[in-house]
Amino acid sequence: MGESESAKKIEEEVGRVVEQAKELQDSAASFISKASADDQSLRNRVVSLDSSIRRLHSLLSHNNHNLLDPKLADKLEEDLQRARCIMVDGDAASFLPPKTQGGFLKMFLGPINVRASQKDIQLKVKEEYNSYRDRTALLFLFFPAALLILRSWIWDGCLPAFPVQLYEAWLLFLYTGLALRENILRVNGSDIRPWWIYHHYCAMGMALVSLTWEIKGQPNCTQKQRGVQLFLQWAMMQGVAMLLQNRYQRQRLYTRIALGKAKRMDVVWGETAGVDGQLWLLCPILFILQGFEAYVGLLLLKTAFIGVVSEWQVFFCGILLVLMAVGNFANTVQTLMAKSRFKAKMKRSKSKPEL
Amino acid sequence: MGESESAKKIEEEVGRVVEQAKELQDSAASFISKASADDQSLRNRVVSLDSSIRRLHSLLSHNNHNLLDPKLADKLEEDLQRARCIMVDGDAASFLPPKTQGGFLKMFLGPINVRASQKDIQLKVKEEYNSYRDRTALLFLFFPAALLILRSWIWDGCLPAFPVQLYEAWLLFLYTGLALRENILRVNGSDIRPWWIYHHYCAMGMALVSLTWEIKGQPNCTQKQRGVQLFLQWAMMQGVAMLLQNRYQRQRLYTRIALGKAKRMDVVWGETAGVDGQLWLLCPILFILQGFEAYVGLLLLKTAFIGVVSEWQVFFCGILLVLMAVGNFANTVQTLMAKSRFKAKMKRSKSKPEL
Repeated sequence: MGESESAKKIEEEVGRVVEQAKELQDSAASFISKASADDQSLRNRVVSLDSSIRRLHSLLSHNNHNLLDPKLADKLEEDLQRARCIMVDGDAASFLPPKTQGGFLKMFLGPINVRASQKDIQLKVKEEYNSYRDRTALLFLFFPAALLILRSWIWDGCLPAFPVQLYEAWLLFLYTGLALRENILRVNGSDIRPWWIYHHYCAMGMALVSLTWEIKGQPNCTQKQRGVQLFLQWAMMQGVAMLLQNRYQRQRLYTRIALGKAKRMDVVWGETAGVDGQLWLLCPILFILQGFEAYVGLLLLKTAFIGVVSEWQVFFCGILLVLMAVGNFANTVQTLMAKSRFKAKMKRSKSKPEL
Repeated sequence: MGESESAKKIEEEVGRVVEQAKELQDSAASFISKASADDQSLRNRVVSLDSSIRRLHSLLSHNNHNLLDPKLADKLEEDLQRARCIMVDGDAASFLPPKTQGGFLKMFLGPINVRASQKDIQLKVKEEYNSYRDRTALLFLFFPAALLILRSWIWDGCLPAFPVQLYEAWLLFLYTGLALRENILRVNGSDIRPWWIYHHYCAMGMALVSLTWEIKGQPNCTQKQRGVQLFLQWAMMQGVAMLLQNRYQRQRLYTRIALGKAKRMDVVWGETAGVDGQLWLLCPILFILQGFEAYVGLLLLKTAFIGVVSEWQVFFCGILLVLMAVGNFANTVQTLMAKSRFKAKMKRSKSKPEL
């Protein structure tokens, strides 16, 4: 092949590449405009269907006494519920109006959208969140345990400041990560209770404040570090509870995915199937933990008022712990009540056809 | 209208809603599968075009001596560059393989995708980042200024711990937010230098460590707080530099958008047009700031070695400040050199046709 031929070939190839780039630009532009038009029309249909369902639902629940036979009303209500499930759990869910992202995400991330458009990615996000919680629960157990063991074996009952501060910094990082992930889950349609996110904001605040809290040493180290010691013990218990909670949540998710594959719209009905046994192990542990949390908080407040350690940080952490204990208790009770109401309703609707 | 008629109408409506839900599910599923197939084919085309451009580019830069007339080679190189610009700056850019998100985002956010698919949203993210920097630059100026003024007016030359710790906590929050946003910008195709992100990781570390650093008071308050005072002065200067930098960056972005509207593919060429004047005001300030940063770092190290304040935190912050100053200096110089090389090249290619 002569030199001029090669040169010509290269010239042609460059020309072709420029042509291809222009074509690609045109295809991309037309794909984007077409896809966003289709996307918008699906969004509009979802919104209008959603409002129809809402309207009919309120019609059925307020007006049915004089208009409809109760049996028919129940059946229609069930149909509506089914339509809602198809919309919320199916592919159309990606086109539901997004939940607003909330100030926390905006503060850290700016206006970027963190909503995954595909259902399977949303489930992957949830699965990853659970495995993140698993990993952190183990550290939650071992980090304070190591500090307490080293305290009595090596440090002669008096914790040095650095490892405790390292632990506090880790807590701050951990809670920030959890709060961000939970906000992201919420945007992606998770029904996580807002309290658990507020709870992590409180925990972030506590970790931050405890970093500024000077770890006092000798003399009277045991007395001065009583608060830290109690806090570490509580953290260990927290680790155990987190591990149990994760097992429970994970099984709920697996049930959801499995049912979703079998019959997508039935997901909501089967949510709690097969994991009730674990709940009765989890609940007492959660309540004991909450009691201990409040106890540690009150002890800190006592320490602050008696004046053994008179820094404002002690007072602040005490208040936060008591607040978190009360909130956790109230929300656990509410969750349990919602679950038992739901079970009663399911029993009722199952037994009805036999009557 | 009779009761049974109304009842019948409601029943019909419910039936229609269920039908609509099913139809919507089908449309959504088919739209998603069609869109993802189209998306994939565009992705493949972009990847293959990208590799063609790379291949031809290396052919032109290595082999052109014996094959092509230099003038023709230059022209072909320019054509290739144009094709690359069409691909990178046009609508096809959304289909370029995503940059990996990096460990930092994964650590805080999990596996969620933070890439905006539309060019205008990417520009919005950048614009919001700049306005976030503007707001923080003002606080960066006033927060330490207020502390220093109150110190001499009200606190008799001795800073109390709480406001300083509040400032440090704010710094930690601010740098975490900046690091997250910059990582998001990178994923969205920004050409931000990696150093500026590492720099914010260092700053996060410093803010965290300084929180655990006990603010010592009387006696010898002035001597003990010398480091804090210097740090606050440096922070004020940092605020001024940030404001100037923001102005410069913002004008660069506006130029980009304006040029992008006029002639999209020429964006890269016109990047620095019209803002060179500001650069020669910005640079000396940046260099003075970096010198002062290194000076504060060395003073902290001196304090730590002489033993006025012997905590490890002082030593650690000193090292970090010196590191950050050196890195900032090296990167500013590299940026300036890249800009002047680019300008020389532009001059050369402009003057060539006249020869």
